[in-house]
Amino acid sequence: MFKLIVLCLLLLSRETFAAPRTMADVLAASTPSDWRPIDLDNTLYMELNTGRVIIELAPVFAPRTTTNIKTFAHEHYYDGTSINRVQDNYVVQWGDATEKKPLGTVTKIVKAELSVPVLGTGQFTPLVDGDIYADKAGFTNSMPSARDDKTKQAWLTHCYAMVGVGRDVAPDSGNGAELYVVIGHAPRHLDKNVTLVGRVVQGVELLSVLPRGTGALGFYEKPEQRVIIKSIRLAKEVPVAERINLEIIRTDTPTFNALVESRRHRVDEWFVDPVGHIELCNVPLPVRVVK
Amino acid sequence: MFKLIVLCLLLLSRETFAAPRTMADVLAASTPSDWRPIDLDNTLYMELNTGRVIIELAPVFAPRTTTNIKTFAHEHYYDGTSINRVQDNYVVQWGDATEKKPLGTVTKIVKAELSVPVLGTGQFTPLVDGDIYADKAGFTNSMPSARDDKTKQAWLTHCYAMVGVGRDVAPDSGNGAELYVVIGHAPRHLDKNVTLVGRVVQGVELLSVLPRGTGALGFYEKPEQRVIIKSIRLAKEVPVAERINLEIIRTDTPTFNALVESRRHRVDEWFVDPVGHIELCNVPLPVRVVK
Repeated sequence: MFKLIVLCLLLLSRETFAAPRTMADVLAASTPSDWRPIDLDNTLYMELNTGRVIIELAPVFAPRTTTNIKTFAHEHYYDGTSINRVQDNYVVQWGDATEKKPLGTVTKIVKAELSVPVLGTGQFTPLVDGDIYADKAGFTNSMPSARDDKTKQAWLTHCYAMVGVGRDVAPDSGNGAELYVVIGHAPRHLDKNVTLVGRVVQGVELLSVLPRGTGALGFYEKPEQRVIIKSIRLAKEVPVAERINLEIIRTDTPTFNALVESRRHRVDEWFVDPVGHIELCNVPLPVRVVK
Repeated sequence: MFKLIVLCLLLLSRETFAAPRTMADVLAASTPSDWRPIDLDNTLYMELNTGRVIIELAPVFAPRTTTNIKTFAHEHYYDGTSINRVQDNYVVQWGDATEKKPLGTVTKIVKAELSVPVLGTGQFTPLVDGDIYADKAGFTNSMPSARDDKTKQAWLTHCYAMVGVGRDVAPDSGNGAELYVVIGHAPRHLDKNVTLVGRVVQGVELLSVLPRGTGALGFYEKPEQRVIIKSIRLAKEVPVAERINLEIIRTDTPTFNALVESRRHRVDEWFVDPVGHIELCNVPLPVRVVK
């Protein structure tokens, strides 16, 4: 009798908690608390002629630069600037091609924010398969990030769609006037070399399809090739009716752990080899529109 | 005197062999034998309205499928077919959207070629930083590849620009009539799940800029969105005057080891953190045009 009960409990727990699942299964079973709203105080709407790109900033990892970028947006600095560089399998980069536009009230020289103390960055969900570039890789507040156990530092990582701060050779030469988005295989060698400030959560494909520049580093060679940025606005400064209510998967929940596991161990019918591993930048971070 | 000679030899050898170098330094010092010609017997020219995409096949890893693809090209099967699927951060895929075009003399059902015995694949240059998805990752005949020490199997890996064989749920349902190219972060979970046949060595940006499909899996929803393939030809069946003579870096040389090291340990002035690691799909495989 006792054995039977144990067996039943085992079967039940396997069915309830451990049945192999696809990501679609995991998302279908998610509850409202598995998602969080996009942080409107730290979200940018970039308007192109082709549509809107939505960027969520990460002030915890880059407080000074984020403040600057929000000031740039508040003062409409980016409006009428342009995408000047599109390098295949690498980045899309924008800014003031004339280099003459007044910067407004921002801080002109910002010390690069290459990493921050782990303490204060909040819950970290590490991946079990390790990482080629860092001691530990995982997720912090729905952004890919990494940590070093010796230095106790944490930083955002250059996965697809991450947003960083263009700079010259001098490490502190980026103040947020020029930004870039990763549109290729994760250039993780840029981690801790340049300030990352956030992630494109919607519309990255409006950037990744842009014609590649034929100049050095993918810069457009002719001014008329540049892609005009109509505006970049803080979401909370846009009329409510023009906002898009987005929710992003939280990365500090059992549901997210199940999502990662569903992508580590593939049970989808199509797979011959269940894989059994997952690398940081291959973990999807689902975003959904809420009515 | 003896000590002085030893010191001089040490300094000299350090200068000659071990001075930290950038990739540009390494390539500038390369000799003709560090490069090999693209294998014209196994190269495809894909002609789009926007230009030519050049694909080098890897018959060692996928002999049956490569033979089929060469037959398809020889019989002009691909001409007039179309790119039907472009999924952001994933793949571009082409084939006969009508699914009615006669296949010609190819083998209709080809057993998937997911891995091959290590023996016979030639020299393998492993990376020292390991890999998340495989026992060992590195390069075989200028293609990214991986190996398993227990099974003694080897396979090509899904890095940016790699070319694979579209298939349905049945593992052996891909015969080469449908092909795809990786245009995003390496989807390494596809390794050993689908047959890889080669790599785009020139013109991948003609594919990566294509409009993303808005249907499921990035399929175009309207027939008029499809991108026509004018032709796909075997390079050796194209008149000599219309060929492009390309050379690719060999991956079995000290020069290639130096190239990898130049990207593992960054001495370029721009870098604050020298990195000290490199992941398979971040190793460049330079290609050059030869007059």
